[in-house]
Amino acid sequence: PRSFRVVVLPGDGIGPEIVAQAKRVLEVVAAASSDFELKLETHNFGGCAIDETGEPLPESTLKACQEADAILMGAIGGPKWGVHAKVRPEQGLLALRKALGLYANIRPANFASDALLEYTPLKPSIAQGVDMIVVRELIGGIYFGTRKEQGVEPDVDTAWDNMIYSVAEVQRITRVAAQIALAADPPLEIHSVDKANVLASSRLWRKTVTETLEKEYPQIKFDHHFVDSAAMVIVASPKRLNGVVLTENLFGDILSDQSSVIPGSLGLLPSASLAGAPSKPSADFKPTSGLYEPIHGSAPDIAGKGIANPIGTILSAAMLLRYSLGLDAPARAIETAVRKVLDTPETGGLGLRTADLGGKTSTVELGDKIIDIL
Amino acid sequence: PRSFRVVVLPGDGIGPEIVAQAKRVLEVVAAASSDFELKLETHNFGGCAIDETGEPLPESTLKACQEADAILMGAIGGPKWGVHAKVRPEQGLLALRKALGLYANIRPANFASDALLEYTPLKPSIAQGVDMIVVRELIGGIYFGTRKEQGVEPDVDTAWDNMIYSVAEVQRITRVAAQIALAADPPLEIHSVDKANVLASSRLWRKTVTETLEKEYPQIKFDHHFVDSAAMVIVASPKRLNGVVLTENLFGDILSDQSSVIPGSLGLLPSASLAGAPSKPSADFKPTSGLYEPIHGSAPDIAGKGIANPIGTILSAAMLLRYSLGLDAPARAIETAVRKVLDTPETGGLGLRTADLGGKTSTVELGDKIIDIL
Ligand SMILES: CC(C)[C@H](C(=O)O)[C@@H](O)C(=O)O
Ligand SMILES: CC(C)[C@H](C(=O)O)[C@@H](O)C(=O)O
Repeated sequence: PRSFRVVVLPGDGIGPEIVAQAKRVLEVVAAASSDFELKLETHNFGGCAIDETGEPLPESTLKACQEADAILMGAIGGPKWGVHAKVRPEQGLLALRKALGLYANIRPANFASDALLEYTPLKPSIAQGVDMIVVRELIGGIYFGTRKEQGVEPDVDTAWDNMIYSVAEVQRITRVAAQIALAADPPLEIHSVDKANVLASSRLWRKTVTETLEKEYPQIKFDHHFVDSAAMVIVASPKRLNGVVLTENLFGDILSDQSSVIPGSLGLLPSASLAGAPSKPSADFKPTSGLYEPIHGSAPDIAGKGIANPIGTILSAAMLLRYSLGLDAPARAIETAVRKVLDTPETGGLGLRTADLGGKTSTVELGDKIIDIL
Repeated sequence: PRSFRVVVLPGDGIGPEIVAQAKRVLEVVAAASSDFELKLETHNFGGCAIDETGEPLPESTLKACQEADAILMGAIGGPKWGVHAKVRPEQGLLALRKALGLYANIRPANFASDALLEYTPLKPSIAQGVDMIVVRELIGGIYFGTRKEQGVEPDVDTAWDNMIYSVAEVQRITRVAAQIALAADPPLEIHSVDKANVLASSRLWRKTVTETLEKEYPQIKFDHHFVDSAAMVIVASPKRLNGVVLTENLFGDILSDQSSVIPGSLGLLPSASLAGAPSKPSADFKPTSGLYEPIHGSAPDIAGKGIANPIGTILSAAMLLRYSLGLDAPARAIETAVRKVLDTPETGGLGLRTADLGGKTSTVELGDKIIDIL
């Protein structure tokens, strides 16, 4: 059997609890298959790494991540390492993204089960059928441009950040979006988001996206939205953005978080951050490196209580199998099992709910049931 | 009686239709009072000005705006002057903001009448009681920093935009937010929004907001939110941001549009863009210049049909009376009249609805009824 090395970064707060369930799920699907085996190894990352080594991303962790076939992360951060601290857990995350070249952040926002419609903040008629995949450029733009802090010469009373994009950076993320669009039949529509009526970097973005898609992927439909307008559409009629939402780092940070509250709980949603997808047009999609994590934070207020929702992490593990290991069947099996625990008994499911959805099912119980089904 | 000069910029699309109703309303409240008179003069601005003079903001229009006590605008833009045109209507708007120093954009997002709850995309229980005032810095940040277009040397394949803020710019917008907060009793809470975990300009923003409010306005409660988290809260539990949402130009563009769909139709909401509020702490708030406009666009698809909703423009005229002319009583009278036309008959209102709210009331009829009530 093929053997894959998966680095696990539990992190802080509820991180270890939710990752524990996702690990069990991975072990079960690997045991059930004679095609592949998984070598899972745990490393220190985030606030707990700061406490132990003084750095959020220790050298040994980075090395393990570089050598791994894929990385599964829990969550990092907490009040202990707040915004005023010199060394902060997020710095480790930004450094890891950059070091591994994880330029493609993929965030689906959809309903794992229609039973979850009752939890959406939107009117159910508006939310039902929302099915977006946000593809966010993750290592360019204003996150990684030059910047000047207040207090630094020559003008100590100003601070600035530079939002910069190159044609090559926009091309490669556009190709990832296109490959995701093409994985569906018929291909998904691509909605590119920018602020081209104001920003030069957005004009480059719009021109490059247009040229890349027209030339390399003529079969894909696409359109452009201004970011302010997209933020309205996501609340007022989000299905208009069904398909792939392709955008730059800062806009993607905002819009992916905004759209992720539609399915009712942040605890439910997975994400992938990928490196090395092909620079030439192609329908395959083989990242050379991938970091998978739920979209929620480390929730220090409920850490250690055994009540966190592990579903976002378990679905991240499914994405890991699909994208980094090329194992679609076990990924689907996990997604089906998750749907089953969430569906109501009337539709043949178990109707289990963790505390974030107003229920009483514990983190471990939910893991147990998913494993039973698998 | 005091005499005020008000410049009217109808603009493009539905602009002239909606402005006509707001003008009538202003004329009626002025005629009803012996305290003040209004001199209304109309000028060319936006796409129609491009067609006539080649420029969106002709010299004569700018001069009139500079000399006016206040400016009432309709809407500008349209497919005729699209994103690829050399000269575009929005350039006139950005130039006008800059030339007049309109640094404070004020955008309430609330329900003019509880009867409108049926139109919100959110669950009514989540939307009811939303009452935010977004205070957006309007002439700084990435909108007016230096930028480099693609195709320009030295690196023709990159483009960039600089997001820059000075302490003084952040102080003055913080004071405007504070004065708006203090106009309510008890004072409103201020929610400052930034991305201080990544951006240097946001760290300057957070520090300056904190210091200004702690030192000059100790009676006001405030907190800080990251922009991605604020975008989630506006969908999931917007009342948590009730009060004043204080933010920089780009984040304000996104969040003010996002929050403006909560009340159900963009046609309902007004805005003010102000210059010259005091640089010293004070509870008065006397802008030296003010531009008032509905938040929606020029809606070319329904232009000329007489069905546009004039309420956003009429409420903008009320803000004009209050902020630029210091006339609170007629402003309130207009707001009360608007509430009355929107309230359902069961609660003593007329229950009128224009097409954007699924009704059949025309632009002129709605103006008529508001004037009847006044
Ligand atoms: C923690 C923070 C730096 C990060 C980001 O802004 O990218 C987070 O919000 C995310 O989206 O993963
Ligand atoms: C037209 C555009 C330049 C403008 C902006 O982004 O400021 C608009 O979206 C607004 O908010 O008034």
